[in-house]
Formats: sequence, C-alpha cells, structure tokens
Amino acid sequence: MQNDVINLADKLTKFSEHWSPRVIAEMNDYQFKLVKIQGDFVWHDHKDTDEVFFVVQGTMSIAFEDRTIELSAGEMFVVPKGVQHKPFAAEECHLLLVEPRGVVNTGESGGALTADNDVWV
Amino acid sequence: MQNDVINLADKLTKFSEHWSPRVIAEMNDYQFKLVKIQGDFVWHDHKDTDEVFFVVQGTMSIAFEDRTIELSAGEMFVVPKGVQHKPFAAEECHLLLVEPRGVVNTGESGGALTADNDVWV
Repeated sequence: MQNDVINLADKLTKFSEHWSPRVIAEMNDYQFKLVKIQGDFVWHDHKDTDEVFFVVQGTMSIAFEDRTIELSAGEMFVVPKGVQHKPFAAEECHLLLVEPRGVVNTGESGGALTADNDVWV
Repeated sequence: MQNDVINLADKLTKFSEHWSPRVIAEMNDYQFKLVKIQGDFVWHDHKDTDEVFFVVQGTMSIAFEDRTIELSAGEMFVVPKGVQHKPFAAEECHLLLVEPRGVVNTGESGGALTADNDVWV
C-alpha cells in the first residue's frame, strides 16, 4: 500500500462515516488521515503533539478558547499541542490530518465520537 | 506565523524559483514546504527519513531505480528513506513536501540545485 500513488479523491469515495479518520499513508512514525466531518466535534486537546488540518473539500471551523478560525479547501492550520480546540462544520467537509501514529481523535476527552485508531482505507 | 491560516494558493504567489522549497508550516519537528519544479532534479536519497510528495497543481514524475511513477494534482506518494529517486516535470508543477526539519533537498548528492534550508514564505 505504501508503494502506491495515493489519490485523495479516490480514497474519499471509499468511506462515508463522519468523524472517523482513515489512514492513507505513513511517513516515518507519522500518519496522513482523511476524515469527513459534519456538525460539532468535542472540545479536546492532544497533550503530546501538534496536529495539522488541511481542507481538501468544503469549509470547516476550529473553535479555540479565544477565537474561531475558518478553513476552506486549500487551506491548512497547525493546532499546537496542548491547545483545546473544537472542530465543526455546518456542511460536510473533507480533511487531511497529519499527526503521529497513535493519536486518538478525541484526545483524552473520550465520548461517543472517539474513533477506532489506525484504520486504513 | 504558526497562528495563521495557511492558504497554499496565496503562498504560491510569493515565489517563483524552481527547486527552492519554502517552509509554510511546522508540526512538531516536521516541516511543510511548497516547491515549484520544472525540468530534471538530481538523483538522491534521504538516509534518515521518508519524504512525502503531494501535488498541488500540475503533474510530475519520480524516477526510481526500478520504475517511474506519475503524480497529478490531488495525489501523493511517500518516498521511503534510503531510496534513490529523481523528481522531474516537463511543465511547471507545484508540490507540498512533508519531511523533518533540516532535510536538504538534494540529500547527500549536493550540486547546483541544492537549496538553502529553512526558508519560510
């Protein structure tokens, strides 16, 4: 799988669940994950790592304690480690996440939106 | 800079040199770099790290000792560490590279195409 050309649009046809990241590539001990989101996620942070959000299609927002940012297709943002954030999107939005292998989507917040880890597509 | 939304198209308007990667973001000790390429690069490898190529615009190829792959916009590839490769593109192509901070574009091959490191845009 690592030896293949990875086409994001093709990978995005292979799943439909929201808030359920799918790994598409690994670089060293980092993973690239596609995720489809809609609605509100939970407030959480990642104590040990920064996290990259790159919007492939649509528009999303990330709420922080002091502000909210909006990201559209072709835009990215680095959420620093330890910073509480809540992603949300009114309409379905497709993202590419980059973070170390093993990061749980809800951090230590848990809850129903906690997804299985290391699921490849 | 790390607190801003990063718009790839906007960043791409800010430089024109070929084979000269510009850092647009850092995640932990990794960097995201935009680069514009055209023509042939040099054969090289990176002994200590994998390297991600993501095509933002255009089409490029990467030659390996046993095959050549072609990447178009929206496609990515992970070049494993220690694997000799030679990127090339007939027409100008815009890429996003992801690799650890400090990686030199020509690896240990050197030569005229060796770019300054850690140049932000």
